[in-house]
Amino acid sequence: MPLKSKDISFFFNPRSIAIIGASPKPEKLSYTILENLNKVGFPGNIYPVNPKYPSINNLRCYNSLAEIDGDIDVAVIVVPATRVLDSLKDAGKKVKGAIIVSGGFKEMGDEGKRLEEGIKGVVEKDGLRVMGPNCLGIYDTTSRVDTFFLRRERIARPLRGDISLVSQSGSFASTIMDELSSEGIGVARVINYGNRVDIGESDCLEFLADDEATKVVALYIESIDDGRRFVEVASRCAKKKPVISIKVGKKESGAYAARSHTGAIAGKYEIYRAAFKKAGIIEVYGYEGFIDACRTLSVYSLVKGRRVLVITDGGGIGVSIVDVCEDYGLEVTGIKEDTKRRLTSKLPPFCTIGNPIDLTGSVTDEDYITALEGAVMDGFDIAILAILWGPPKLTEGLVDKLKRVMSQSHIPIILCSPGGEFTRKMNQIFERNGIPVFSAPEDAAMAAAILTGQRI
Amino acid sequence: MPLKSKDISFFFNPRSIAIIGASPKPEKLSYTILENLNKVGFPGNIYPVNPKYPSINNLRCYNSLAEIDGDIDVAVIVVPATRVLDSLKDAGKKVKGAIIVSGGFKEMGDEGKRLEEGIKGVVEKDGLRVMGPNCLGIYDTTSRVDTFFLRRERIARPLRGDISLVSQSGSFASTIMDELSSEGIGVARVINYGNRVDIGESDCLEFLADDEATKVVALYIESIDDGRRFVEVASRCAKKKPVISIKVGKKESGAYAARSHTGAIAGKYEIYRAAFKKAGIIEVYGYEGFIDACRTLSVYSLVKGRRVLVITDGGGIGVSIVDVCEDYGLEVTGIKEDTKRRLTSKLPPFCTIGNPIDLTGSVTDEDYITALEGAVMDGFDIAILAILWGPPKLTEGLVDKLKRVMSQSHIPIILCSPGGEFTRKMNQIFERNGIPVFSAPEDAAMAAAILTGQRI
Repeated sequence: MPLKSKDISFFFNPRSIAIIGASPKPEKLSYTILENLNKVGFPGNIYPVNPKYPSINNLRCYNSLAEIDGDIDVAVIVVPATRVLDSLKDAGKKVKGAIIVSGGFKEMGDEGKRLEEGIKGVVEKDGLRVMGPNCLGIYDTTSRVDTFFLRRERIARPLRGDISLVSQSGSFASTIMDELSSEGIGVARVINYGNRVDIGESDCLEFLADDEATKVVALYIESIDDGRRFVEVASRCAKKKPVISIKVGKKESGAYAARSHTGAIAGKYEIYRAAFKKAGIIEVYGYEGFIDACRTLSVYSLVKGRRVLVITDGGGIGVSIVDVCEDYGLEVTGIKEDTKRRLTSKLPPFCTIGNPIDLTGSVTDEDYITALEGAVMDGFDIAILAILWGPPKLTEGLVDKLKRVMSQSHIPIILCSPGGEFTRKMNQIFERNGIPVFSAPEDAAMAAAILTGQRI
Repeated sequence: MPLKSKDISFFFNPRSIAIIGASPKPEKLSYTILENLNKVGFPGNIYPVNPKYPSINNLRCYNSLAEIDGDIDVAVIVVPATRVLDSLKDAGKKVKGAIIVSGGFKEMGDEGKRLEEGIKGVVEKDGLRVMGPNCLGIYDTTSRVDTFFLRRERIARPLRGDISLVSQSGSFASTIMDELSSEGIGVARVINYGNRVDIGESDCLEFLADDEATKVVALYIESIDDGRRFVEVASRCAKKKPVISIKVGKKESGAYAARSHTGAIAGKYEIYRAAFKKAGIIEVYGYEGFIDACRTLSVYSLVKGRRVLVITDGGGIGVSIVDVCEDYGLEVTGIKEDTKRRLTSKLPPFCTIGNPIDLTGSVTDEDYITALEGAVMDGFDIAILAILWGPPKLTEGLVDKLKRVMSQSHIPIILCSPGGEFTRKMNQIFERNGIPVFSAPEDAAMAAAILTGQRI
């Protein structure tokens, strides 16, 4: 199958947006969309369309699209399923693309399926591009677009950042967005395409591959429309920037559930896994894995090798991290003889100098820096610092010292600090200074694996 | 090998504690121990021992144990490694048991090993029981003992609860304690036995099996001293109460690291796994898995079957949970025909009534209750409610409605609610009402698996 040639970049830089089915009633989805477009500060023209109202929120409301002067880039369609087709036919002559928010299609059985076939017909005939139906559309910090019908009081919006998120599932897209926001991780574009009557994951990847605002692509995949095209486009994208992906609907019942909510059929997991691998996609496992990967890649670039040095002041946690690092195929190799000699002469005698380096409960801030400088000199690709805050001589002064090492070398430093109130307070200080901190040894090891570009 | 007959229960109900190596200097470990014994409200007699001082913190300080009238239950030894043996010999005639906090033994090489052999000799000759060396000892909310030398400002102490924690690693014990504290999960006894010259995991299990204060036992295992005895005692314990365990030091390097910090040799993981299975221990994976298992078992008892119903208002998250439930061997089976009919008549038409039940973004509080009552009627063992808070009609009123269902039936309800600020605020309300909430679908599914008593 040939690559689709038609560009979808206007969705991510629209000069005008029409809302078909606009309403002044706050309980309506279309009202929330209008409100969110204002809150995100959309700089273009907004045209509410609904013959019932002369104006909405001080904006002139149009009887129909035809009444509006000139062309429109994007129409957001929020009318009952049975009226979507008519709205789309009107739009087909006037707009470049439509986001069909309305549900009630393939996911609702045969009648919905027929309606969806009708939409496909318009797409083929009129050549406009369609996102949805049954989708949230786009949240975009670059062009300041927000068609998500979820209120900001309940689902917060992340600030501007480098990650773009592509998700078939609307609930996943919005939940991740909300979570990234509260973790202070920014996004470039968030795209939820729902039932995928036209635009799907491959179209999005094609756009994002060349999108300068996007430094990292994060995919949530239930199913893939066209495997060959996906591998082709994803490969091209992954050569330019890290692409991570989570695959949901792996098992029979999961696949069944996936079908029931977006009408798609989720295929055999093994096939997806092979496709991801072929395309150079970093596959992540689990919801937290996805968030953690976003957090790590929002701070660090991928590294070349896979040698990891673990430095800790708590024996048990060092063991845990080494365990999991090896599960991920990372090399937790011994340090070189001259590094060892150097560290032995500089660190207190009760320290165990290996991998992990165990600085024990007598640790000082300076000991961590000494060990870390050893890691840099030894040529390790990543350093994991497993800091337990029980030891009384450790202070928050460590953060400035760490930053100094980070500015002089380029070794990514991952912190692992499990614990309660005091520890969490310390972790916040490190995170505010741009050092990613994880609670669980497993998550810290996973973050290291992500940085080596491995499937986790 | 015969079961050791000697009881260690006096460690968990001591009338008197001597601190050998007591000091008035706040930077000394022994000072922190004295302070913590006071803070926990130890009701028995405390005897500081150190010939250098006449009194410490208004307590008479003794020149030696011999000076103290009468017998002493527990001596906490906090002197340099080279002086431990002499202290222990003095104690052997006077005390029932000693906790040797001091480090510098097997974990430090050959000389330490010889010192440790000396300790073993005293144990065999004098018949006293020894915990340690290189350990934190006991934190006990029942008898109000705290020999942990970590300051409360850095490592918080959990309130009284039902879980007892047994850990070879001191850093693991204290970190978990700190974390449980900040999650509001209580403990009965926390035991860290370090280098295990005498008392080890099997002795602890033997005591905890019959301990009425302990309803759940949580083990952190790097190595096991005597496999046969362990399986025997753990089996007896697991018949009376849930026993969960995490095994660390699975791989070659991990095992090496484990050896370097407690001097123990961690053996092949597969052998441990088989031993856990034989003993009826629920094995958990990872640090968060351990915490999550504690949280779940602090609220619910094990269930008999493994049928799980997933109820959600977000399609994608329902799929994720079903996926992982099946990974754990849970039965996410369809609901019975009459339940389905009943729910179809009571729920709005756009809901998908299967497993998961998808209540969609139009969900109300009452819809969740209707679906949950269906689950109860259908005989499901566990219900997972994956609540996304985007839908505007969902309110915190749901918590009281849920509690009503919970008081009328005994189905364990696990909540899964990922998200940002608003969601986290809601989650806190549910948690304060005794309903465990997890962020990630994977963790919620794991909690369900824990309740069926499965290895996770």
